[in-house]
Amino acid sequence: MDACNQALTEIPLPDIDAIYVANFSSSFGNQCHLPSLLASKLGIHKEITRVESACASGGLALKEATVALRSGLYNNILVVGVEKMTGVPSRDINGIIARAAAPDEITHGTTFPGLYALMAKRHFFEYGTTEEHLAKIAVKNHENALNNPNAQFHKKISVDEVLASTYIASPLKKYDCSPVSDGAAAIVLSSQKNAQKYTDSPIKLIGIGHDVGSIELYTRKDITRMPAVINAAKSAFDMANVTATDIDVAELHDCFTITELIEMEDIGFCDKGKGKQLIDDGATEIDGSIPVNPSGGLKAKGHPLGATGVSQVVEIVKQLQSEAKERQVPAADVGLCCNVGGSGGTAIVSIFSR
Amino acid sequence: MDACNQALTEIPLPDIDAIYVANFSSSFGNQCHLPSLLASKLGIHKEITRVESACASGGLALKEATVALRSGLYNNILVVGVEKMTGVPSRDINGIIARAAAPDEITHGTTFPGLYALMAKRHFFEYGTTEEHLAKIAVKNHENALNNPNAQFHKKISVDEVLASTYIASPLKKYDCSPVSDGAAAIVLSSQKNAQKYTDSPIKLIGIGHDVGSIELYTRKDITRMPAVINAAKSAFDMANVTATDIDVAELHDCFTITELIEMEDIGFCDKGKGKQLIDDGATEIDGSIPVNPSGGLKAKGHPLGATGVSQVVEIVKQLQSEAKERQVPAADVGLCCNVGGSGGTAIVSIFSR
Repeated sequence: MDACNQALTEIPLPDIDAIYVANFSSSFGNQCHLPSLLASKLGIHKEITRVESACASGGLALKEATVALRSGLYNNILVVGVEKMTGVPSRDINGIIARAAAPDEITHGTTFPGLYALMAKRHFFEYGTTEEHLAKIAVKNHENALNNPNAQFHKKISVDEVLASTYIASPLKKYDCSPVSDGAAAIVLSSQKNAQKYTDSPIKLIGIGHDVGSIELYTRKDITRMPAVINAAKSAFDMANVTATDIDVAELHDCFTITELIEMEDIGFCDKGKGKQLIDDGATEIDGSIPVNPSGGLKAKGHPLGATGVSQVVEIVKQLQSEAKERQVPAADVGLCCNVGGSGGTAIVSIFSR
Repeated sequence: MDACNQALTEIPLPDIDAIYVANFSSSFGNQCHLPSLLASKLGIHKEITRVESACASGGLALKEATVALRSGLYNNILVVGVEKMTGVPSRDINGIIARAAAPDEITHGTTFPGLYALMAKRHFFEYGTTEEHLAKIAVKNHENALNNPNAQFHKKISVDEVLASTYIASPLKKYDCSPVSDGAAAIVLSSQKNAQKYTDSPIKLIGIGHDVGSIELYTRKDITRMPAVINAAKSAFDMANVTATDIDVAELHDCFTITELIEMEDIGFCDKGKGKQLIDDGATEIDGSIPVNPSGGLKAKGHPLGATGVSQVVEIVKQLQSEAKERQVPAADVGLCCNVGGSGGTAIVSIFSR
């Protein structure tokens, strides 16, 4: 409710025509039918739709809201993402999350740290990326989260600490993994004409791409790439009529540190295999040439699965509004979000401008 | 896959621009992320979205596809509903379904037969409806299913047998309840201009209404009505520019026999409390004035939760195409589907014409 209320400070609830709510799994909270639960909590009757595509559910809600606005049937749409992951015994959490993988991957006992560890191993083999490169991503995201009051962790960590942390699935260690989180995020999306009623400086959604491909890692030709991310980014760039070099700030889906690295390459911030150089150069730090995850990312801001894709948009909007305070990226005119589901089966890439 | 392939006999898969997949709970099959699983099974990369709003998920997928078509971004959209309920021990099934109710209803041990039993009790008290009226609904739907090769039950039953069956939640007995089902259904929705490429006689979706209200039964002023159904029906009738008297055939959401009765009244096939007269008159039988559930309904065709709303559309389309064979309703020009989620928290009403 807090997230909804914060999103509705400028637009009153009666002006909202439809709501999209993103949530990954009813098994955490023993609750499906979130549209009706939300109607109860808000005391309303409206068109409310839950969408799910694993950890990309939040981005998917944004995309469906965009399509709905394009239909001309609605003026203002509330987009909410939510997940409460701590309601079940911690031993059950990995099993519930693993439902975003393929049935045979699940049957054989795979968990997501394992799947992304395979991607990391191959990336190391092909391109010479190392555990230290990944550690630097974790250190940066924890550093950024120090300035985000909504982050789950406010804890500075060092490369040595990351490297010394327990292996979860080699080469990924505890500090390479995003945490178990409870959280929610909400935004309002309005048609351009309508947005002017509520604000003089709306942030514009100028491009969005959505692609879904194979759920199994083992069916992909090259597991150092996520084809859905490549396709979604291309669609978003085409719609926005900008290129990767135009992006001033990005929120990428760092469920694991390797995921942030692969996205940097798949989106085109650098060539394939060259992500490690951006990391070594500090390019993805807040004062670098392409700041990534100024919010602290999934790693340190937290990863409440269904909320994450919406939360990324909240951060980019704050950055483009120059309201990100101590974590503000200088001269942020164009921002990008990349939200990924499963081991890259689903991707939504969105691009915003002032 | 069978349902998808049957839907794609006239339109090849490459012509499909987007897919909406409806599914209620990942807990039955231990599987979320159905968009990516479907992409794997079909061997494609596409925009694929899962939607959920309890047992109205199938209708919701239809509605989202309609909105997406209205955006002008897509020409042909595949709408799939699917549920495999038999993957878990039968003792767990009611608990998983109960997640479509309110958290405090669940905590206090409510199950859906119990919630609908309360609605039935009140309906009996207010309007003099009896267990025999409800039994006649079950008998009719089982009779209709005899002529539906895709129905779960091909078993003629009598009013006496229904009345003698075990109480599940008084006054609802075993034969008042829809079964546990595995199933899938699929349709293709095309823009009017585009549909002409594939068929000379497309069935037109002329109206659709979607409303979501409170999840708890106890917050409703009158539990003999489902406000979301009333609102969704009004929206659908307004969009279609027809009234309840124009409907020649309807597929209503008879998760319990009382639900079919309440919907008949809430949609406006008769005044509130007069549903029992339509039943006594045989008006809802195949040769009656307003045939309801010629497919056999959820009661006898089966109720694979996420598939149901799509399956209703398949039946109405077949009826309007005059392809329903032995269960064909005479002179079926305009048909209606009503898909309900939870204890009436969500409703989608759609109207089709030749």
